Amino acid sequence: MKIAQVAPLRASVPPKRHGGTGRIVSYLTEELVRLGHEVTLFASGDSATSAALHAACPSSIRSNPKISFPDALYVLLLERAFGTYAGNFDLIHSHIDLLGFPLARRCSTPVVTTVHTRLDLPELEPVFQQFSELPLVSISDAQRSFKPGANWQCTIHPGLPRNLYSMHPHLGKYLAFLGRISPGCGVEQAIELAKRTDVQIRIAARVDPVDQHYFDDIVPLFEHPLVEYVGEITDGEKDDFLGEAYALICPIDRPEPFGLVLIEALACGTPVLAYRRGSIPEIVDHGMTGYLCNTLTEMVHTVAWIPNLNRHHCRAAFEERFTVERMVQDYLLLYQRAAHEKSDRSTAQVPCQVMQPAPSVLTDDARIDRRRHLVKQHKAGQLAV
Amino acid sequence: MKIAQVAPLRASVPPKRHGGTGRIVSYLTEELVRLGHEVTLFASGDSATSAALHAACPSSIRSNPKISFPDALYVLLLERAFGTYAGNFDLIHSHIDLLGFPLARRCSTPVVTTVHTRLDLPELEPVFQQFSELPLVSISDAQRSFKPGANWQCTIHPGLPRNLYSMHPHLGKYLAFLGRISPGCGVEQAIELAKRTDVQIRIAARVDPVDQHYFDDIVPLFEHPLVEYVGEITDGEKDDFLGEAYALICPIDRPEPFGLVLIEALACGTPVLAYRRGSIPEIVDHGMTGYLCNTLTEMVHTVAWIPNLNRHHCRAAFEERFTVERMVQDYLLLYQRAAHEKSDRSTAQVPCQVMQPAPSVLTDDARIDRRRHLVKQHKAGQLAV
Repeated sequence: MKIAQVAPLRASVPPKRHGGTGRIVSYLTEELVRLGHEVTLFASGDSATSAALHAACPSSIRSNPKISFPDALYVLLLERAFGTYAGNFDLIHSHIDLLGFPLARRCSTPVVTTVHTRLDLPELEPVFQQFSELPLVSISDAQRSFKPGANWQCTIHPGLPRNLYSMHPHLGKYLAFLGRISPGCGVEQAIELAKRTDVQIRIAARVDPVDQHYFDDIVPLFEHPLVEYVGEITDGEKDDFLGEAYALICPIDRPEPFGLVLIEALACGTPVLAYRRGSIPEIVDHGMTGYLCNTLTEMVHTVAWIPNLNRHHCRAAFEERFTVERMVQDYLLLYQRAAHEKSDRSTAQVPCQVMQPAPSVLTDDARIDRRRHLVKQHKAGQLAV
Repeated sequence: MKIAQVAPLRASVPPKRHGGTGRIVSYLTEELVRLGHEVTLFASGDSATSAALHAACPSSIRSNPKISFPDALYVLLLERAFGTYAGNFDLIHSHIDLLGFPLARRCSTPVVTTVHTRLDLPELEPVFQQFSELPLVSISDAQRSFKPGANWQCTIHPGLPRNLYSMHPHLGKYLAFLGRISPGCGVEQAIELAKRTDVQIRIAARVDPVDQHYFDDIVPLFEHPLVEYVGEITDGEKDDFLGEAYALICPIDRPEPFGLVLIEALACGTPVLAYRRGSIPEIVDHGMTGYLCNTLTEMVHTVAWIPNLNRHHCRAAFEERFTVERMVQDYLLLYQRAAHEKSDRSTAQVPCQVMQPAPSVLTDDARIDRRRHLVKQHKAGQLAV
């Protein structure tokens, strides 16, 4: 297929540092190319890809502080991807969230949009109502639950390259916290957990400029013999940081649409201890690849159970459900369907005819079946470890 | 005519505090309604207007710190103004700069865009090339000089209500600086001028959060007996602040597309002392309503000449060239022409046919003629003072 991938411009694809969306767009793009598809990546010019790169700007917004009008770069991206070059593609896959909605509606080529952002914010409600016919993909069922009226095609969980992280079979000695130090990201709860369970915690987390004051306020919490702050780490460093951990701790108390860090831990064979919030129950199988708790006290009592989990089950869950190959298979099914469903799109003031939601590529039942099958295989010792 | 005015959402229309674009959109809208036109204002819901208000959001972005996705509000504004409701209007007048370009190109109703921003930034170049057929209005000839290839229809200088500020006939005793304390806005040069000429300076200027460090750095400059810092002032307070000044000082060393403060001073009868940069020579007549200088030293020597200027000439220049009535007359001529020029607009990937630039509503020659006529009238004592 001739496929356009439209990426955000704030970071390159893949991002030089952090940035979940850019990483997923990169993995998806590279795998599509490997499978023989003709892919054009619309992204910043400092991106690295084996697809054809169409640069809407020489460098990403984050890497160029001289850019005063980031909107100008997006206007150009929109016009080129959904206008000037749209006719070259069988399908356009947008990753720029709602920014692409007005032109997606008017585009002669089918557009599917993966929504990468959280959807629980009130200002998004009228936008999703206005564009209710646009075919969307959620990155978790939890994410889409905030916008039940949208034209969701399916949930496609993000995936990582199979060999990006390696299986670490031995039970580690420390709790790992990986992410951001920011209000609501749970680092205070993670430290509290370490203290109450008397287990060491290692914290690998970046501090964005906007969160510097918050970090300064909570710095005394880090001055404890059980707490080690290792700063921001690279993708390469994550393998050992996560793989040598006893468990990944994820005490985020808000509905995150997905958590790449959770599947990174599973890829390393490391179980997850997390709050039962948002998308997390879709990613972590309670009692199989981690434990889900409702309160910090529950989490404190659960830390001791971690050795009951089989680290090979964590890795197997990753290989079964969270690889790039699986993600790309799901997307290709959707692309093929969307490219053949040419709808009567109007172009001006009349909104498009509302399309009926199509059945999910993978239904909930099928997903549960697949998970049960995995468990059975494990119990029968059939999965390579 | 049935006219839509599409305003930025960062502030209400008119803005509760500062915001040049929102003020101009408000003046334009109210005058069009007064003349009997059917006007719909697309703006934030906390706007105040005698037109029909279509609120894209309950309150402006600046007034609601809880808004995490300002882009969502703009996506909705774009779709409603240029899509859902576009068919209701003879003409759509956009004030949201390049954000409206992709939908303006695809809109069935004629759209004219007044560009309110500076155009000397490199990231704007490919956008203006991409949308070279869209009919644009510049707020000064200097502004458009950075994008000579765009489809400029005319320059229409902003205007203020005739009675917003009042004539102050008596020569004041202090230099006035009104605006922002920000790098490049010239407050340091203004203070230096006061010291070197031994004339008092009063500084009415806001400090945006982003400029707080800069302000902290230059605060010692304000500790001088000739310098008085009066903070941010309201529109109502400007009348006396400007009107009782000896001159307005405007030592901005970059190409500003327009300076509302200059015509506010003229409306009060106060002459302007400014650098010969950007749009300023279009606003201030050297030797008639102020003096234009190339360097600070030249400005120091020129301060003593201010009493040679007739304050009534300043007010007359304002009444002749910078009132809302004049601005609206110019826009109506343009609206009528644009509404009758229905071009073949394509809707999808093929850019519109390039329209030939139309002659300016007011040519440069006509503008110079009008200015000469004004001077003659003054010399003959024909203008009411």
